[in-house]
Amino acid sequence: MRQVYINGKFVPETEAKISIYDSSLMFGDMVFEMTRSFNKNQFKLKEHLVRLYDSLKYVHIPLRMSIDEMEKACLETIEKNEPFFKETDEHRLMINVSRGPLSIYSEIFDGKLEPLVIISDFPLKWTVSGMGDLFDTGINAVIPSQRAIPSYLLDAKIKNRSRIHYMMANIEVSNLPGSNNWPLLLDPDGFIAEGTGDNFFIVKDGELYTPEPRNILRGISRQYVFDLANELGIKYHEKNLELYDVVTSDEAFMTGTPFCMLPVTKINGMNISNGNRGNIFNSLLSQWSDNVGLNIEQQIKTFNSEMKNYASEGSTPYRFKND
Amino acid sequence: MRQVYINGKFVPETEAKISIYDSSLMFGDMVFEMTRSFNKNQFKLKEHLVRLYDSLKYVHIPLRMSIDEMEKACLETIEKNEPFFKETDEHRLMINVSRGPLSIYSEIFDGKLEPLVIISDFPLKWTVSGMGDLFDTGINAVIPSQRAIPSYLLDAKIKNRSRIHYMMANIEVSNLPGSNNWPLLLDPDGFIAEGTGDNFFIVKDGELYTPEPRNILRGISRQYVFDLANELGIKYHEKNLELYDVVTSDEAFMTGTPFCMLPVTKINGMNISNGNRGNIFNSLLSQWSDNVGLNIEQQIKTFNSEMKNYASEGSTPYRFKND
Amino acid sequence: MRQVYINGKFVPETEAKISIYDSSLMFGDMVFEMTRSFNKNQFKLKEHLVRLYDSLKYVHIPLRMSIDEMEKACLETIEKNEPFFKETDEHRLMINVSRGPLSIYSEIFDGKLEPLVIISDFPLKWTVSGMGDLFDTGINAVIPSQRAIPSYLLDAKIKNRSRIHYMMANIEVSNLPGSNNWPLLLDPDGFIAEGTGDNFFIVKDGELYTPEPRNILRGISRQYVFDLANELGIKYHEKNLELYDVVTSDEAFMTGTPFCMLPVTKINGMNISNGNRGNIFNSLLSQWSDNVGLNIEQQIKTFNSEMKNYASEGSTPYRFKND
Amino acid sequence: MRQVYINGKFVPETEAKISIYDSSLMFGDMVFEMTRSFNKNQFKLKEHLVRLYDSLKYVHIPLRMSIDEMEKACLETIEKNEPFFKETDEHRLMINVSRGPLSIYSEIFDGKLEPLVIISDFPLKWTVSGMGDLFDTGINAVIPSQRAIPSYLLDAKIKNRSRIHYMMANIEVSNLPGSNNWPLLLDPDGFIAEGTGDNFFIVKDGELYTPEPRNILRGISRQYVFDLANELGIKYHEKNLELYDVVTSDEAFMTGTPFCMLPVTKINGMNISNGNRGNIFNSLLSQWSDNVGLNIEQQIKTFNSEMKNYASEGSTPYRFKND
Amino acid sequence: MRQVYINGKFVPETEAKISIYDSSLMFGDMVFEMTRSFNKNQFKLKEHLVRLYDSLKYVHIPLRMSIDEMEKACLETIEKNEPFFKETDEHRLMINVSRGPLSIYSEIFDGKLEPLVIISDFPLKWTVSGMGDLFDTGINAVIPSQRAIPSYLLDAKIKNRSRIHYMMANIEVSNLPGSNNWPLLLDPDGFIAEGTGDNFFIVKDGELYTPEPRNILRGISRQYVFDLANELGIKYHEKNLELYDVVTSDEAFMTGTPFCMLPVTKINGMNISNGNRGNIFNSLLSQWSDNVGLNIEQQIKTFNSEMKNYASEGSTPYRFKND
Amino acid sequence: MRQVYINGKFVPETEAKISIYDSSLMFGDMVFEMTRSFNKNQFKLKEHLVRLYDSLKYVHIPLRMSIDEMEKACLETIEKNEPFFKETDEHRLMINVSRGPLSIYSEIFDGKLEPLVIISDFPLKWTVSGMGDLFDTGINAVIPSQRAIPSYLLDAKIKNRSRIHYMMANIEVSNLPGSNNWPLLLDPDGFIAEGTGDNFFIVKDGELYTPEPRNILRGISRQYVFDLANELGIKYHEKNLELYDVVTSDEAFMTGTPFCMLPVTKINGMNISNGNRGNIFNSLLSQWSDNVGLNIEQQIKTFNSEMKNYASEGSTPYRFKND
Repeated sequence: MRQVYINGKFVPETEAKISIYDSSLMFGDMVFEMTRSFNKNQFKLKEHLVRLYDSLKYVHIPLRMSIDEMEKACLETIEKNEPFFKETDEHRLMINVSRGPLSIYSEIFDGKLEPLVIISDFPLKWTVSGMGDLFDTGINAVIPSQRAIPSYLLDAKIKNRSRIHYMMANIEVSNLPGSNNWPLLLDPDGFIAEGTGDNFFIVKDGELYTPEPRNILRGISRQYVFDLANELGIKYHEKNLELYDVVTSDEAFMTGTPFCMLPVTKINGMNISNGNRGNIFNSLLSQWSDNVGLNIEQQIKTFNSEMKNYASEGSTPYRFKND
Repeated sequence: MRQVYINGKFVPETEAKISIYDSSLMFGDMVFEMTRSFNKNQFKLKEHLVRLYDSLKYVHIPLRMSIDEMEKACLETIEKNEPFFKETDEHRLMINVSRGPLSIYSEIFDGKLEPLVIISDFPLKWTVSGMGDLFDTGINAVIPSQRAIPSYLLDAKIKNRSRIHYMMANIEVSNLPGSNNWPLLLDPDGFIAEGTGDNFFIVKDGELYTPEPRNILRGISRQYVFDLANELGIKYHEKNLELYDVVTSDEAFMTGTPFCMLPVTKINGMNISNGNRGNIFNSLLSQWSDNVGLNIEQQIKTFNSEMKNYASEGSTPYRFKND
Repeated sequence: MRQVYINGKFVPETEAKISIYDSSLMFGDMVFEMTRSFNKNQFKLKEHLVRLYDSLKYVHIPLRMSIDEMEKACLETIEKNEPFFKETDEHRLMINVSRGPLSIYSEIFDGKLEPLVIISDFPLKWTVSGMGDLFDTGINAVIPSQRAIPSYLLDAKIKNRSRIHYMMANIEVSNLPGSNNWPLLLDPDGFIAEGTGDNFFIVKDGELYTPEPRNILRGISRQYVFDLANELGIKYHEKNLELYDVVTSDEAFMTGTPFCMLPVTKINGMNISNGNRGNIFNSLLSQWSDNVGLNIEQQIKTFNSEMKNYASEGSTPYRFKND
Repeated sequence: MRQVYINGKFVPETEAKISIYDSSLMFGDMVFEMTRSFNKNQFKLKEHLVRLYDSLKYVHIPLRMSIDEMEKACLETIEKNEPFFKETDEHRLMINVSRGPLSIYSEIFDGKLEPLVIISDFPLKWTVSGMGDLFDTGINAVIPSQRAIPSYLLDAKIKNRSRIHYMMANIEVSNLPGSNNWPLLLDPDGFIAEGTGDNFFIVKDGELYTPEPRNILRGISRQYVFDLANELGIKYHEKNLELYDVVTSDEAFMTGTPFCMLPVTKINGMNISNGNRGNIFNSLLSQWSDNVGLNIEQQIKTFNSEMKNYASEGSTPYRFKND
Repeated sequence: MRQVYINGKFVPETEAKISIYDSSLMFGDMVFEMTRSFNKNQFKLKEHLVRLYDSLKYVHIPLRMSIDEMEKACLETIEKNEPFFKETDEHRLMINVSRGPLSIYSEIFDGKLEPLVIISDFPLKWTVSGMGDLFDTGINAVIPSQRAIPSYLLDAKIKNRSRIHYMMANIEVSNLPGSNNWPLLLDPDGFIAEGTGDNFFIVKDGELYTPEPRNILRGISRQYVFDLANELGIKYHEKNLELYDVVTSDEAFMTGTPFCMLPVTKINGMNISNGNRGNIFNSLLSQWSDNVGLNIEQQIKTFNSEMKNYASEGSTPYRFKND
Repeated sequence: MRQVYINGKFVPETEAKISIYDSSLMFGDMVFEMTRSFNKNQFKLKEHLVRLYDSLKYVHIPLRMSIDEMEKACLETIEKNEPFFKETDEHRLMINVSRGPLSIYSEIFDGKLEPLVIISDFPLKWTVSGMGDLFDTGINAVIPSQRAIPSYLLDAKIKNRSRIHYMMANIEVSNLPGSNNWPLLLDPDGFIAEGTGDNFFIVKDGELYTPEPRNILRGISRQYVFDLANELGIKYHEKNLELYDVVTSDEAFMTGTPFCMLPVTKINGMNISNGNRGNIFNSLLSQWSDNVGLNIEQQIKTFNSEMKNYASEGSTPYRFKND
């Protein structure tokens, strides 16, 4: 059975649990990262860990473990779990760090009130299953009534667990007919922010535009699209975007660690790029695939057909419909 | 050992844990209530449960358990734990309801993706220890830089676990010298909202004022203070309050389930009521004590002297200083 | 054929048109009222006209016609059209006042640049057809992404024609499955405002609550519900309301001139009052029917069955779906 | 007599009217463009039509006519009207597209509920008369109390007819003494937005600055000034501008289709550029004149002297004073 | 010559000066009150002093002088100056308290860094001269572009000297023709706040309405109007008011210490109460006159005719026009 | 004794005072500049005067004195005072311009109501004393609850005297333990604005970032850092910055006229650059020192040791603690 790393020890996945008296449950007080591998090699693990440590600093979690020790623990976790992964699987790490138990419950924990580091390794295919079709149909990005929270109130740049409002946005969008509706949140100023687990790009006149890195997570995949754009000689811009910009764009797409890139072919039901995925999207995804040495789209579609009976974890609504 | 109710079963307190793949941990997606007893009798349990079910409805957690079944489970939990409680202890229930595991992890849970109901019973004294002195010194309410989140973005009326911003406010205030500093949050409009686990009142010209029930939890204790005011012939008002109103008030106090009422004798270090607790506070607390048949202040002070060596869970800063 | 009053003359309904160079078309610069009769008697005509003249004043349209002359013109229009109305029809007046042609087009209008008064009389049944079923199913009020415009930018209290944002809200909600979805707009502060042609009420603990009369039209029917409440000894309150208040309400309903009152039995798909219409709604509607001497619900249902093949004009989505 | 194109037919200008039951009148639900010719040749007609179709898409008006058909209809309309234009006149096209009649009035329209396309051709001189003097005196840009509406509530980038707030701003400014006062709206964030029919530029240290294209119409003339700047080697920037930037600017000007460019020599009565028009303005206007083969300033001044007795349609106040 | 009290000493009025290194000049860091007498008796002096001490507390000026000592100093100042006052004059006290010199300039002040208390006594007639006509013409209240500052940024309830924005509003309104234009500020939410030295009331259906005491000074005269209303059996309400409420009001007026009450007969140039002052205004002013034993209107008109050649200090524009 | 220039005359420093009836005291209605010399030569005097005249224009103070006359008066003031300055002192000019006395006090001023120009010359060492240590310890920048005022309400780009809110921020931060806490204000959008007398920079990946020049004073030192960056080949950016950017920055520093540059080594108590000052800071300060021909840090430290017993005027809290 898969094993989960908890503060230096490994426990079976079914036992990977956190006390109800931990700050992570009491206050949504936990920061985390989620990674993936390509051909079993972790992608941008260091970048994920740097972001994790930035989050830790921001929320004042006094973790003593160094970033190098954290990286080592990640790799050890993968090694431990590889035997339980199929040849074609990929390693999706989830790295959680909590402040630890609240002090008034000290007695229950024998006085140990230290931060909690949990690293789990899960087959990527479960996460992306159901997304295979979206490479063909594209996503219908839908502006829900739920707004993104401005960063000065609760900063989305901190990848943290206080995000029930993302769940609310997911539920809201799940009321629409169709299975390709993903929420795309506006912030209270009416600017496009992000999805509930993905960043958003448009293409206009051959150049990339993505929201200013303010009320959003500064995604590792988002950054990698910048790198790909540089590689391909495509200009990119971080700008305040509005619904009008999306409606009048030439292409649009989402980025996220598990699926890398998915085309957005509709906005609030209106066609973008005549409802087809665009050339720039294709170039970027193709370059990404080349760089990591596997056909990303093909891999996810393969996962998809294996998993047809399961729901996926993306921003898609059925995640909670089935719950 | 104390036992915790989890979906119909009882487990030892040390085993009361939630899977890392549960929606409560992944999204801060859990609603809850915290109650207390007086002389071992639960206070306003029904009101707490009604609020819990309102929260559940709002966040679309499809719990099948009825409110009566929930009440029964609460009482059963107390019965189970009473043997482990001292004569003088009080029962502090924590009732958590999570949406349950995310569907992509279905396999791990043998396909059981139902909501999770957890009821724990903990001696109140741990929670209120350290608050005994505050009846004498009073709280110094401090406006932190962290603002309350407007309800249309993340509704504080839903008693939920996505509240890392409360932790941030606590940490911010903990940087001040002294041990009686509690945060008092403004909302982005500059109106007084609430503490990070307590409601706020002022007294002016013999009448009570408390913020409009908008960007705050509509506290059960807050409501009970209204009832006490009616009993005592004191007028009360729900109004937008500002720092100016607090600075120029005659008295101020906080309310919260574990401690009922605590005097606020300073605002940002400025004296209220010359730094002493006021008469209206005394009348209300005295009436409350009469109504429940025990001296609340005395009880907490007694807990306090028993527990001197432990930190408390209130909004006080050392909660995380020791963590 | 029905005749329409235009600046003192009557023209056939098919010729009731406005020049493309009129300020009403160039700037959405027209104020209006819509009324209805009960048993052929105009209801609250004077109140509608007072509001019309308040709007005229606010937007500085220098109409020379007095309010009494306007009333007379309304009655004359009805008299003229009564022959074309069935026995069971009701007179729905639409009174439009425009600033008139822009001055640069003066030549086209022979230099006549005066305001334009248009009074049309249309059978009510067309407007309310399709609403009959809603008395039974109730409306599902849906919060769209489109927000109400704050009154200091464009005042909804002025019943004017610059309201394409209402059309946008209607379209947004029309994407949901079902035929009983009506938009219920939040203002940018997150407070419930109004529908796109109707006011909103909730009932809680036997008392009525409706939004403060700020970012909404101060509806004549809304005011009449206050009158009915007084008649029936029901307390009512104008207060800032939020989604939470609606979710936790006992009943909810919409008011509007053509249909008077319609029950809201769902909010964002969640049941209110277990999905049934409530007792207070019934009492109010029954009293209203008594006061005007006809069964309102019955009348609309009768219209409904007559008109089954036509779309209605309410806030319902098919209004534009069919266009 | 001049003829107006309406859904494929031509009618005399005096008969170019829209039913009172059309969505354009009921909801300000119409999008439009206004163009001009130079020496009888339409300027940037294609750019105007692209923007028109973007607006149509945004507001979901399902027009079946293609953009090429629209262009053809425009040219046909000009051809039809040329005989009624003097040698020196220019063709100002106004292209309106409405959603069409509301469905409940279907009977009146024999069931034809299709969108309405109206193309009118009007001599430009009427529009710009009265502006000739402004090339010499310059405009006094005045910040009115009326704010621009943020685009997420009602998007100024959609050239639509719901804009009574522009009329309100015009009226407000008309109360000031003098005939060269034009409103310059701030958005609610205090940033300079636009006039009520014109875009705004400042010059500082030899470079052009104009507001970010957010709460404004993205004017065709505004874009053309960018082109001219490129031609002349002048740098330009789209930036958030504030009153301070205008007060401390070296030059300022407005742009708009009918008049191309007009100098702004005062802001709230304070001199800019010592109250004179500036060199960069002169260069740009001169280049524009060269590019289109006629002296723009001279042409408008000539129109002006012909028309002295008429009011103009610009943002100037007497437009409604005379109405 | 009139004498001014400065920290316990009296100096001639021409020598009543403050060092350029005082915090009052460096930071606008001074709080103050302005009072008046009726028949030489100070009106509500105690209320003014209570407000002064509230302001002092809020801004943390550590004044050692007690409120009773302050009152004594005020009376002593009047006594000192009475010889220089005509029989018909009234005593207008201005009480300033500054934090004192900044510490780095200590040497200049021989190390004395204490707060500065200045009490000056000035004939009221200068302040109200020019207002006499306004009892007949009424004020034209004008909404300027300048907004009131929300209290959480700079609290108008603190009567302090950091208010250059009031001067800006005065200047803005002074650009309008006529001599009865007074600014009436909106706050950023679009609610009516106050004038630049006066509170605002409307009358609707026989009841008084005035803005919630939030982004305004809580005027002593405003409070006294409440007292008068109680005396006369007139209901009053503190409510959020908007331009619409003013436009549709039956009467309106301003209150302020020097002039007590002045009618507002126009809002943005539109008539209120047909441009006449109303009955409720008359009743209140008459009662006020009775209560203080002199005809207020008559007194100011008499001052007015004496002073015709001087400008007044109200919110009227010529205050700075002449400067 | 040092002499102060007042409207063309020189008076002893102890007599440099302003009437209590001057607009500067009544309304905080004064604009100013503060400069410094290096080796007795004024630095960027012209730039300061240009900004002063921009401020004067913005607030409509009709000063007749030309900018050249002003410069001359400044130099004359220095010349006059040089005899009273030690060899090692530097000349810190403070140039104040007030609108002058309010017109109703005309009589007191013999009818002279002209603007007031005051130029004082003070030894710089007093201002920077106490800052010497900060070059070593660095500043702990603290986000206070007090927000910066948005420029459209009260523009920080106008260097004016209505800034009691800066004093409030200073006081708030002074409650923290330690002597190196300086406030760093957020604006209401949550963006970093400035200190209460200083601009703020961060360094990230070898490039400089400083807030957009919106809700801040556009500091002369801030601009000079841009010049130094150009000199050293360091890229710089004006961008919206948030707390997250500061927390994750590589270095940070403040700039201000008296002290030039001071390192910020903590933000809200969290280390930046491990609590040390950074290399880019060192390069910039070193270049600045080279350019002006003296070691800035050394000079301030020398002042510091001379003055140990005095408080400094920076944003440090003891400024008012001692008052």
